[in-house]
Amino acid sequence: MSGLPGYTGAARRVLERAGASVGDYVELVTSDGRVFRGILMPRYALSQKPIVVLKLDNGYNVGVRVDEHAQVVVLKTREAVLREAAAGAPAPVPLLEEQPRREGLPRVSVLGTGGTIASKVEYETGAVKPAFSSEEILEAVPEVGFIAEIKARVVMNILSENMRPRYWERIVEEVAREIEGGAEGVVVAHGTDTMAYTAAALAFALRGLPVPVALVGAQRSSDRPSSDAAFNLLAAVLYAARYEGAEVAVVMHGETGDTYALAHRGTRVRKMHTSRRDAFQSINDRPLARIYPFERRIEPLQEPLRRRGAEELRVENGFEEKVALVKYYPGMDAEVIDFLVDRGYKGIVLEGTGLGHVGEWLVDSIKRAVDSDVVVVMTSQTLFGRVNMNVYNTGRKLLAAGVVPAEDMLPETAYVKLSWLLARYEPREARRLIRVNLAGEIGERHTLDLYPRWPL
Amino acid sequence: MSGLPGYTGAARRVLERAGASVGDYVELVTSDGRVFRGILMPRYALSQKPIVVLKLDNGYNVGVRVDEHAQVVVLKTREAVLREAAAGAPAPVPLLEEQPRREGLPRVSVLGTGGTIASKVEYETGAVKPAFSSEEILEAVPEVGFIAEIKARVVMNILSENMRPRYWERIVEEVAREIEGGAEGVVVAHGTDTMAYTAAALAFALRGLPVPVALVGAQRSSDRPSSDAAFNLLAAVLYAARYEGAEVAVVMHGETGDTYALAHRGTRVRKMHTSRRDAFQSINDRPLARIYPFERRIEPLQEPLRRRGAEELRVENGFEEKVALVKYYPGMDAEVIDFLVDRGYKGIVLEGTGLGHVGEWLVDSIKRAVDSDVVVVMTSQTLFGRVNMNVYNTGRKLLAAGVVPAEDMLPETAYVKLSWLLARYEPREARRLIRVNLAGEIGERHTLDLYPRWPL
Repeated sequence: MSGLPGYTGAARRVLERAGASVGDYVELVTSDGRVFRGILMPRYALSQKPIVVLKLDNGYNVGVRVDEHAQVVVLKTREAVLREAAAGAPAPVPLLEEQPRREGLPRVSVLGTGGTIASKVEYETGAVKPAFSSEEILEAVPEVGFIAEIKARVVMNILSENMRPRYWERIVEEVAREIEGGAEGVVVAHGTDTMAYTAAALAFALRGLPVPVALVGAQRSSDRPSSDAAFNLLAAVLYAARYEGAEVAVVMHGETGDTYALAHRGTRVRKMHTSRRDAFQSINDRPLARIYPFERRIEPLQEPLRRRGAEELRVENGFEEKVALVKYYPGMDAEVIDFLVDRGYKGIVLEGTGLGHVGEWLVDSIKRAVDSDVVVVMTSQTLFGRVNMNVYNTGRKLLAAGVVPAEDMLPETAYVKLSWLLARYEPREARRLIRVNLAGEIGERHTLDLYPRWPL
Repeated sequence: MSGLPGYTGAARRVLERAGASVGDYVELVTSDGRVFRGILMPRYALSQKPIVVLKLDNGYNVGVRVDEHAQVVVLKTREAVLREAAAGAPAPVPLLEEQPRREGLPRVSVLGTGGTIASKVEYETGAVKPAFSSEEILEAVPEVGFIAEIKARVVMNILSENMRPRYWERIVEEVAREIEGGAEGVVVAHGTDTMAYTAAALAFALRGLPVPVALVGAQRSSDRPSSDAAFNLLAAVLYAARYEGAEVAVVMHGETGDTYALAHRGTRVRKMHTSRRDAFQSINDRPLARIYPFERRIEPLQEPLRRRGAEELRVENGFEEKVALVKYYPGMDAEVIDFLVDRGYKGIVLEGTGLGHVGEWLVDSIKRAVDSDVVVVMTSQTLFGRVNMNVYNTGRKLLAAGVVPAEDMLPETAYVKLSWLLARYEPREARRLIRVNLAGEIGERHTLDLYPRWPL
């Protein structure tokens, strides 16, 4: 990528005047005299505000508002920056290289967003920092070149704990761009901390998805000998290139050895361990498939929701940020609910106890929330099983107050779904759609048998 | 129990003037003319307010403030109420009977607190309401009489979703009273929704516990054919009567059949399914024991923290209510933290992502919380595994801001522990003790192998 993608209006004119392209190292002086230096980044925001995005030397992105009087000077061209980076200079550059096309292989796009899969240990402090580009990973895993024609680019570089709904929107855009550009599968390299939330976001926003999309990460950084980055990436590319269905999945180690990976449906997956390689597991659902990367083999474990090419992509992007996920605990005060209502939240996902309960002293505040058009959804902190608010009096009181039970949906998925619904529907319709299965997030049947076996 | 336990001041004088005893069915007319009818309940609150507690005909308890001019009339004595109940009259009575002592058996006290194990279906509405007394359960499970000399009483009747720290304190008192009265084991019948929180509360407050304490419940109400109440109660009484260790445990079905129950350490257990009988499971720990109720056999699965009689009971009761459990999610706004600090919360347990992270935009608010002497503790929403905040920059920033990592402690246990610590220690000491293993809540070793096997 080069040119000035995403830039319009005053920002574009200022950059054009300087002959700047994305990837150049520039100095920007605003009309009120502030000075910024950094790499010119592409502009992904949906708003048309005149903002120039720079990646500063410290690795952070900054959006600087400009007018026609702002001055930009190109200090180093993108090519010079890349040359220096290749020579070992530290540069958190948006390296946007394409590998040569290999004829006949499925086209798979790999998008880097940051996280451990693209990270290395910072030896001064011993901490892990994002640094590797997707290309470097691909160089380290040459096998993927035999599975697919890979096109890789870095679309952002943030640790997944810093992922937010506005970044989900950018990833949705980028994945859609790849699919519209002919990708037959997409791999999104992502930090593991919030990967399951992003997977759910993609699953809801990419309606009629025609190709498989794999989110992949690493529990150990890729310059450690024990890293799972290569194994997982190979499995994810296999899923993207060859899986028969067209679903968003998290593709990660299925057990602690290097035997197989699992593709988990994006709306049903959860990070269940702080450090194990097989931290990601499906809840209330079977994984979509077991993937044996070294044998280049995919074993389906259930029917996909949708086959490749069955539908046409309809992007329904946008997530409401005024939605909260609130886990109930025995000493919880109703003021927590009142606060969210007073602050203008439009949706609250409760992570209640058991079949979907909270202390009855919260009922009045919940009723007030519902009466204020806040959509209040009930999930369970047990994670496994289905809420049923008709069994006990407390559940019935909450139903009467207007709480919407989220069936057997994960709390995290319900949070993402409600954010997505409230960005496009009135509360009444959002309440209805919470209980409608849109992306495999709700099981039609009882899933009592999908419970793990616990060690004794 | 009879007399007027717990009543002092004006409330006691009003009741004494009427010749009323706990268990009598009384009419109370307040000095401003309001009329209440119900069964006089014992008074457990720590405050000295002049309040009379009645169990109304609808099954709910009410606390009525009285002055010297209030009038009480005994409409039916406790004996008459019991006679009518025995003859089948519907009466949610605090039946405080003792069974005849069987010589030579260990003395086990069973305390009823409410919940499904002591509930039945309300046929008009189809909902489950608390109604059975512990005695009725014991009548239904005569086997327990061969295992222990049972003394049973109902200490409260609330659904466990309505359990709160102030009720934990009452349960701690009642368990301690039984132990001081010679009980060689205690069973607490409790609703399942928040049973794990209460188990942790007892584990911290009953220092030097000399006998086993079992919390037990039912996932199906005891008048349904599929109820697990009898099986679980039998297992719990076995644990209380015969287990070699002296720990607080949750004793519930270990699998879906009626083969064995498991005793889970109270600080390591979690309700993991909305409806399965084996919903309770140990996290990052092995269960203490497997119990075969029909064979009257206990198979230890690990060493207990403490043997029976090894120490003397020291009750350290009291839980700070101004403590919050906050689960992180990608769109979380820092205002949620600010609000808690502004409202005078003394402790916040964060349920972060992965190894113990939250979005970096929260760091300033967290630092402000710590600077205001709020103790901020980090756990992981993965549940399994140990937080480690030294691996990534975000973790290190949070440590620098003063966040205390809670090792491999469950978020719910960390919440209970912090509530307990802040009721008795200064913030500095509470911060230190969060990381010290006090009741088996922290594992000394890595427990990577204690991860369930997930179905494919």
